[in-house]
Amino acid sequence: MAERKKTVVLLSGGLDSSTALAIAASEGFEAYALSFRYGQRHSAELDAAARVAEAQGVAQHVIADIDLRLFGGSALTAEIDVPKGRSHAEMGEGIPVTYVLARNTIFLSLALAWAEVLEASDIFIGVNALDYSGYPDCRPEYIAAYEQMANLATKAGVEGAQQLKIHTPLISLTKAEIIQKGTALGVDYALTRNCYDPSPEGEPCGQCDSCQLRAKGFAEAGVPDPLVQRFEVLSA
Amino acid sequence: MAERKKTVVLLSGGLDSSTALAIAASEGFEAYALSFRYGQRHSAELDAAARVAEAQGVAQHVIADIDLRLFGGSALTAEIDVPKGRSHAEMGEGIPVTYVLARNTIFLSLALAWAEVLEASDIFIGVNALDYSGYPDCRPEYIAAYEQMANLATKAGVEGAQQLKIHTPLISLTKAEIIQKGTALGVDYALTRNCYDPSPEGEPCGQCDSCQLRAKGFAEAGVPDPLVQRFEVLSA
Repeated sequence: MAERKKTVVLLSGGLDSSTALAIAASEGFEAYALSFRYGQRHSAELDAAARVAEAQGVAQHVIADIDLRLFGGSALTAEIDVPKGRSHAEMGEGIPVTYVLARNTIFLSLALAWAEVLEASDIFIGVNALDYSGYPDCRPEYIAAYEQMANLATKAGVEGAQQLKIHTPLISLTKAEIIQKGTALGVDYALTRNCYDPSPEGEPCGQCDSCQLRAKGFAEAGVPDPLVQRFEVLSA
Repeated sequence: MAERKKTVVLLSGGLDSSTALAIAASEGFEAYALSFRYGQRHSAELDAAARVAEAQGVAQHVIADIDLRLFGGSALTAEIDVPKGRSHAEMGEGIPVTYVLARNTIFLSLALAWAEVLEASDIFIGVNALDYSGYPDCRPEYIAAYEQMANLATKAGVEGAQQLKIHTPLISLTKAEIIQKGTALGVDYALTRNCYDPSPEGEPCGQCDSCQLRAKGFAEAGVPDPLVQRFEVLSA
């Protein structure tokens, strides 16, 4: 059997990145999953990332520490209240307060470093331009500019080796399409977490933007959310 | 007095970045110095960065932890021998083994995050294209691509606020010119460190590429290296 090409996959533990990981594998890549401990208020996401990485049989899962709290800013890392119960229209207005400063730029730079070590020329990131239009670093033009920069930054770029490619298989999909695709690939969404403000047991709040987008996606996909089902069973 | 514009300055504690910091201040910026603990084998550089930051009166000095050893690779972070006694011609061939993977890409991404919090639109980095031609991420075309990407990554880029500028005041200077410029601005080079393999007391080895480039620079600038003088006095 031919050796599979290696790829670094950014894995937050949410449904998007878990689907991107399954897509990378379905395209024949050997996946190296990279997650970040960046001063999140809760460990639910990282616990989910570890479960998803194991379930999908990645070659290696690394959790890198980057303490963005050093600089302050942003709801996901600082003491700003997570907005709840907003309409979809309200979520689409401007840049969300849950925007984490330069997050994808930082995450991709670490992925690039690991790709260099692995001599991999592919990185997968589950950014999505439709549902999160407020995040500047989820846009196709940002990804294209990052790829161009990365190809000037590295040995591979200088020595004329294979060019680095940043794969964004979800970028133009709706949340419903992502869930349908992942379901077809066997992603176990009960393992994933998206809530910005879960209970200590990891139960999603159901009210934050992320929970609402997830619920809307499952409803439109015509599939029940196995995570919600699990907590309904537990509380029944 | 008008409020000074803020800037983030990448500060390794070596002579280049210490000079870049002095140049930022001489151009009227209020400097926020950013250093990294990235799995270096010794703390001499970070100790130097702290001394330089204090001596130059920065507004704040942050040391961010990023453990690049997670990924392996590169002489500065892994267990590869530092080459000694190489000629200047040998140093110019190919990419040095002391190249740290994607280093400037990672450092600039954290600087970008801090700049967003500070609402600063300027970053200073002491890269130098002449003396270190082997490092792909020290070239002007790399910096230009980074700047373009960064302006697509951030709120400022989306909301049409001031564009981010990456200042590279040393990029086309020789080491001698850097030293002359820094000396004119009052930089105390006795506080700086460049050696890849210093003694436990912080004495430069004198033989690694970095020590040789520094010695050549001071010789060509016609200025004695105060750091070398200090250790000569100590050992006399």
